[in-house]
Amino acid sequence: MSTSTRQITLRRRPMGWVTLKDFEIRETILKVPNSDQVLIRAIYMSLDPYMRGRMDATKTYAQNFQIGEPLKARVIGEVVHSEHANFNAGDLVHGMVDWADMSVAQGADLHHVDPNPVPLPYYLGALGMPGMTAWIGMEMGAPEPGETVFVSAASGGVGQIAGQIAKLRGCRAVGCAGSDDKAAFLLDELGFDAAFNYKASTPVLEALHTAAPDGIDMYFDNVGGTTLEAALDHANNFARFIQCGMISQYNLSREETMGIRNLTHINRKRIRMEGFIVGDHWDRFEEFMSEMGAWLSSGQIRYRIDITDGLENAPKAFISMLKGGNFGKQVVQIGPAP
Amino acid sequence: MSTSTRQITLRRRPMGWVTLKDFEIRETILKVPNSDQVLIRAIYMSLDPYMRGRMDATKTYAQNFQIGEPLKARVIGEVVHSEHANFNAGDLVHGMVDWADMSVAQGADLHHVDPNPVPLPYYLGALGMPGMTAWIGMEMGAPEPGETVFVSAASGGVGQIAGQIAKLRGCRAVGCAGSDDKAAFLLDELGFDAAFNYKASTPVLEALHTAAPDGIDMYFDNVGGTTLEAALDHANNFARFIQCGMISQYNLSREETMGIRNLTHINRKRIRMEGFIVGDHWDRFEEFMSEMGAWLSSGQIRYRIDITDGLENAPKAFISMLKGGNFGKQVVQIGPAP
Repeated sequence: MSTSTRQITLRRRPMGWVTLKDFEIRETILKVPNSDQVLIRAIYMSLDPYMRGRMDATKTYAQNFQIGEPLKARVIGEVVHSEHANFNAGDLVHGMVDWADMSVAQGADLHHVDPNPVPLPYYLGALGMPGMTAWIGMEMGAPEPGETVFVSAASGGVGQIAGQIAKLRGCRAVGCAGSDDKAAFLLDELGFDAAFNYKASTPVLEALHTAAPDGIDMYFDNVGGTTLEAALDHANNFARFIQCGMISQYNLSREETMGIRNLTHINRKRIRMEGFIVGDHWDRFEEFMSEMGAWLSSGQIRYRIDITDGLENAPKAFISMLKGGNFGKQVVQIGPAP
Repeated sequence: MSTSTRQITLRRRPMGWVTLKDFEIRETILKVPNSDQVLIRAIYMSLDPYMRGRMDATKTYAQNFQIGEPLKARVIGEVVHSEHANFNAGDLVHGMVDWADMSVAQGADLHHVDPNPVPLPYYLGALGMPGMTAWIGMEMGAPEPGETVFVSAASGGVGQIAGQIAKLRGCRAVGCAGSDDKAAFLLDELGFDAAFNYKASTPVLEALHTAAPDGIDMYFDNVGGTTLEAALDHANNFARFIQCGMISQYNLSREETMGIRNLTHINRKRIRMEGFIVGDHWDRFEEFMSEMGAWLSSGQIRYRIDITDGLENAPKAFISMLKGGNFGKQVVQIGPAP
């Protein structure tokens, strides 16, 4: 048996902003699955901001992508052929595989997916890595009922969940996003108490004063930069700043990066600023799935997904996402759902 | 009974760097102590970096100084006359009073001082607010034996204690200070494992690589700016950054302040950066006094004090301290010790 597939590889490491020329699409023949391996047909593929770091030469917490090799992503797929005892042809699975139509993976790295309780792509979002990221971060920030929680990139894959958890915890949820439509979505669809478009003419700090008149007790930061500086200015004493990501800075060189000039607030306001990576917390995955699954089934948490069609459009979708072009969790549909 | 005294007042709020023109010295007649008040003759007065914030118009955590009114400081003094039941003439006391030869204070705001166990000025340093600041900050950072603790302004009033507590906790203590003499003092007198002069020609990050070859697990930050940026670059995963102060930035406008451009390390390295103010922890004062008193009596912790003579020289000493001119905890001797 030999299988042909398209793969998207890293052609070169991007300098600054990612461009289409940093990717290459190729046709290749896959090796036959060995013992314990599984051949998968991709259905949905997740694009996430942290992948930008994996394109650089510097290894961070995630292994970096290799030039000339396929990029990797979390994928929902269907088992085509299995040499692993836990999987059979036709099974729906979830795992980190190639940006490709077809991949060979170690069975040990795959997990079954149940298509019944929620839409399949949710396993790449609300019920997957981004959802668990929001869940862990909100636990770290530990907001009390009545406190104000500010979330940036609030209509994104992580931010949607963070803000809705804040509401479930009895907090006032304030979100910012990159368009008037997104801000309206946060208010009207997700139940945020206040939301604003950070790209509008009103400076972020002024918008924050209006949206959070009692100040900020917890900030769930997905963006860094100007928004982080404004959040520090507007923070209350003993605020918790949970640093999930800084997407506004990912495509800038060290020299271009915006320096944060008001860190003395950390001292004066006794702020705790803490970074985290969801991968340190996988031992909590079952607990997360149980709680989030219940919230999604009951409709207490809603989730918007932005689907781009076609593997060949994944690089464009990834670049667009880094610029805020997505509206909801970014997913690429590679093949038909069963 | 009427008492004449010299007082140093805030003539105007400094713009940027403090200058001698921001102070005024005047001769005045004190009001006679009311019921529950005490008249004090100052012996030693503490000068501390946080006072710079009190000179600004913006109220931070400490009440700001008022133009035309005496500046305030922690003072060790002798009771001259008491209308409070707890104090008698001749008692040695400690409290927040005027920059002056003589002050009238509420008895309730004063504490007795025992001159026997340690030198009197220690109550303004190792056994006072700066010592407790170091003690609380080291508890927050909670370094484990074998970890590397980096302390900036390490020969200052707080830094000396922080580094020596790190040693007592079984850590590797690394300090930086503003001269070769200070660095030698940290190594030879206080037992730091490594120390460097941050004003030397070697860039701070390079000096840190040499002084802390295994990276930094905890950073006790007294300075902010370039040193903070280098510490973030050189931090290990899960490092704790305890933000005590940022003296390098206190005399700069918001526009002049150095922006910190590598905060993405907080996310990638899962760093916890936490600010604190010792005033939130006074309920721990007895516990602190007991532990620190024992360390000082046994010689396990040593402490260097830099004494400037004469109330009239306090403004000059304060300005010098903000520029790192002091070598050890800065104290002004106002009158003779008994």
